[in-house]
Amino acid sequence: MRIEQNYTMLCDFYELTMGNGYLKSGMKDIITYFDVFFRNVPDGGGYAIAAGLDQVIEYIENLHFSESDIEFLRGKGTFDEEFLKYLTTFRFTGDIYAVPEGTVIFPGEPILTVRAPAIEAQFIETYLLLVLNHQSLIATKSNRIVRAAQGRAISEFGSRRAQGADGAIFGARASYIAGCTGTACTISDKIFGVPATGTMAHSWVQMFDDEYTAFKTYCEIYPTNATLLVDTYNVLKSGVPNAIRAFKDVLWPQGIKKCAIRLDSGDIAYLSIKARQMLDEAGLTECKIIASNALDEYIIRDIVTQGAKVDAFGVGERLITSKSDPVFGGVYKLAAVEKDGEIVPKIKISENAGKITNPHFKKLYRLYENDSGKATADLICVHDETVDDTQPLTIFDPDYTWKRKTLTDFTARELLVPIFRDGKLVYEEPTIEEIREYCLREVDSLWDEVKRFENPHNYYVDLSQKLWGIKQSLLSQKGS
Amino acid sequence: MRIEQNYTMLCDFYELTMGNGYLKSGMKDIITYFDVFFRNVPDGGGYAIAAGLDQVIEYIENLHFSESDIEFLRGKGTFDEEFLKYLTTFRFTGDIYAVPEGTVIFPGEPILTVRAPAIEAQFIETYLLLVLNHQSLIATKSNRIVRAAQGRAISEFGSRRAQGADGAIFGARASYIAGCTGTACTISDKIFGVPATGTMAHSWVQMFDDEYTAFKTYCEIYPTNATLLVDTYNVLKSGVPNAIRAFKDVLWPQGIKKCAIRLDSGDIAYLSIKARQMLDEAGLTECKIIASNALDEYIIRDIVTQGAKVDAFGVGERLITSKSDPVFGGVYKLAAVEKDGEIVPKIKISENAGKITNPHFKKLYRLYENDSGKATADLICVHDETVDDTQPLTIFDPDYTWKRKTLTDFTARELLVPIFRDGKLVYEEPTIEEIREYCLREVDSLWDEVKRFENPHNYYVDLSQKLWGIKQSLLSQKGS
Repeated sequence: MRIEQNYTMLCDFYELTMGNGYLKSGMKDIITYFDVFFRNVPDGGGYAIAAGLDQVIEYIENLHFSESDIEFLRGKGTFDEEFLKYLTTFRFTGDIYAVPEGTVIFPGEPILTVRAPAIEAQFIETYLLLVLNHQSLIATKSNRIVRAAQGRAISEFGSRRAQGADGAIFGARASYIAGCTGTACTISDKIFGVPATGTMAHSWVQMFDDEYTAFKTYCEIYPTNATLLVDTYNVLKSGVPNAIRAFKDVLWPQGIKKCAIRLDSGDIAYLSIKARQMLDEAGLTECKIIASNALDEYIIRDIVTQGAKVDAFGVGERLITSKSDPVFGGVYKLAAVEKDGEIVPKIKISENAGKITNPHFKKLYRLYENDSGKATADLICVHDETVDDTQPLTIFDPDYTWKRKTLTDFTARELLVPIFRDGKLVYEEPTIEEIREYCLREVDSLWDEVKRFENPHNYYVDLSQKLWGIKQSLLSQKGS
Repeated sequence: MRIEQNYTMLCDFYELTMGNGYLKSGMKDIITYFDVFFRNVPDGGGYAIAAGLDQVIEYIENLHFSESDIEFLRGKGTFDEEFLKYLTTFRFTGDIYAVPEGTVIFPGEPILTVRAPAIEAQFIETYLLLVLNHQSLIATKSNRIVRAAQGRAISEFGSRRAQGADGAIFGARASYIAGCTGTACTISDKIFGVPATGTMAHSWVQMFDDEYTAFKTYCEIYPTNATLLVDTYNVLKSGVPNAIRAFKDVLWPQGIKKCAIRLDSGDIAYLSIKARQMLDEAGLTECKIIASNALDEYIIRDIVTQGAKVDAFGVGERLITSKSDPVFGGVYKLAAVEKDGEIVPKIKISENAGKITNPHFKKLYRLYENDSGKATADLICVHDETVDDTQPLTIFDPDYTWKRKTLTDFTARELLVPIFRDGKLVYEEPTIEEIREYCLREVDSLWDEVKRFENPHNYYVDLSQKLWGIKQSLLSQKGS
């Protein structure tokens, strides 16, 4: 099941003014190549995780203007009737290549490439960026949080602080892909199968005359799923003692040992250690402790380091908004156009060297060391190049070209796979479980140095000699 | 026109487990009072702006479970058949009071109050918070950016970096309410009437053999709306000279003086001053300069202070995600329950004094000085109190009760207005233009000291003597 909304009109207005312009100037059918890539990993991390392709596919397949869309556009007084008529049958007829969801990605490399008539390729810019940026942001952040917890489960709790409904719904999806074990967001379970869980709010406790009765009633109704929120009044003086009493009174007679408490305020490290002692002394050694309250990868790392007795974390606003760095800066840039059947590379110059684009229709390889199985570098090539991993390969830093390395015992894997050809879906979408497992394998293929939260090792993303040469030649033409 | 999606299932799973629990324990129809309030103004500002009520209304009116929702919930194995049957006819039957959209709001005061049977009031928590938090966040941020521009127009450009489609669509709405003049997001124009504009991307320029031809072609197609993006290659050496040439060649023969250039990279202050000189020297004194590229209120303030010659700004990712503080921390807390026809106030204690709630069914007054017309304090009262502004009123700080002030020549305005009664909409929704004008008047009613970006004056939000007494009494009962 998918979201019902048709997002065709979720475009920047300039995509329409340019479209009208391409049509009027006879350029609409020029074949263009656009790349999606990003420039910086959020939070200064060493890598990002691609997500959102499933929504790109859905969008491309549904792409069409309704009559009321056309009527609205006519009312703007900006567009020619010929263009409005063209929009009535507008569909995507081009090719799309992309890295699969869950792939580890690095700055500067194409994560999605569109080959299509100019008018179509230009039009889909905003929505493609929007979904890829959003879900890659949340997947990247979630994976940091999951890693900080060192094997303890992370559940996504942030719907109420998400930036709009889709922020919650697709944020839960992205967080699951990146390693979270579940969500509080019920609709994300229904739509995507992200396991939704939840037990009680403080209001449940407040609705009863006393905390014990609130806990006892909950245990009676959900004896096999009793997670009691113990911080409505006072964690150690009332919450934990009342929880212990309720567990013993209700669960023990039924032979049930599995239960949990949740801490949602105060000093989690201190309270969890004290609560663990109290639970253990009461014989509730199988009672789990879950912690929530404004957590992120840094706080979880600190809590874990301090010996907190937490078995699982619920993480809300700082995950669902990627609070410490809430923008994934993916961009959509023209890389080439076809002229008389030839692919002509295009470049965007900038005063900031980091903003200069990699021209041409490209391929992306990941190079793995055969002995360790770890990824050692990515190589961006021109579309007609092939890396032969049976032969030694010399790669070099595109900025400091004297930095060279020759790989011998390695495996090259092409990352961009065909998604659409001539407007038809040619990609078999994996299940969300398959994407999640793939993502965790992807992260495992990185050296620990790349995975550091602070000052990670700078993973190499190099250009082939041929691509490097084309780029330099365009720079010297246009930059003069 | 509204968004088509039914968001009933966008709930935290615990709202369903609690609902099932209230039903099973015979508590589902207990009348409860829940408040939405927030604790801190984002970015350390002096006030926030309420937005999102329109989407709350839409949600409440559409609230229902589909057959497939019920089927999905049955499959979770958590809920009783009686509860699932109850859900088939689930509707909201209670009352909702809220501050109108565009209202200036302060921490700790109720901005929305729900009075409804426990099972209903509890259920709507997540979605209400989600839309109010999101739109209030973006409205609050946008208003800061609008004020920094000191009368220059701000257009919202951030769709591609929004956190999901709704982030873009409703973010554009919230930014317009708070004073932006338009958006790049076409669908927000169609749905809400937020004026959408846009001209060209760098790719338009790259599609032509040279920059001049790209500009000339654009001017020919859109002579009355020619905004040329001048930084694809080099702003001062090529972009501005080519724009001048295109304007003169195409627009002047048609007698058109109105045109604009857009700067999207580099040092905006420097480039705009240089570009202004070049345009003026060429006789293009009516050509406007628009700037974009990672702007926010701080950068705009700096650019304006440095004498930049910018007439309007396009603001993207830092507005649409409220990048510097991307979470609006609205919460939903139980304030009272009815027992034998009496309203029994409820409180949530916390180790953090700032997290203790204001109990009871409440009213919210804003007190204006009659001579200046400025808002001087807000007063939270018990529902059965009335502020008589013909009589002197002594207000006091709820934490430092010796801080007192007696108001004489003032006007009291009640801020919470009825939205739903017995599940029926009783509120006439203003148009988005009315909301926008109201919001700008609201901000005008504040002293400049409250509007400072850094270290603003702390606006007083006081409790009535009666409410203060009830809170103290509950604290001494529960805190012991």
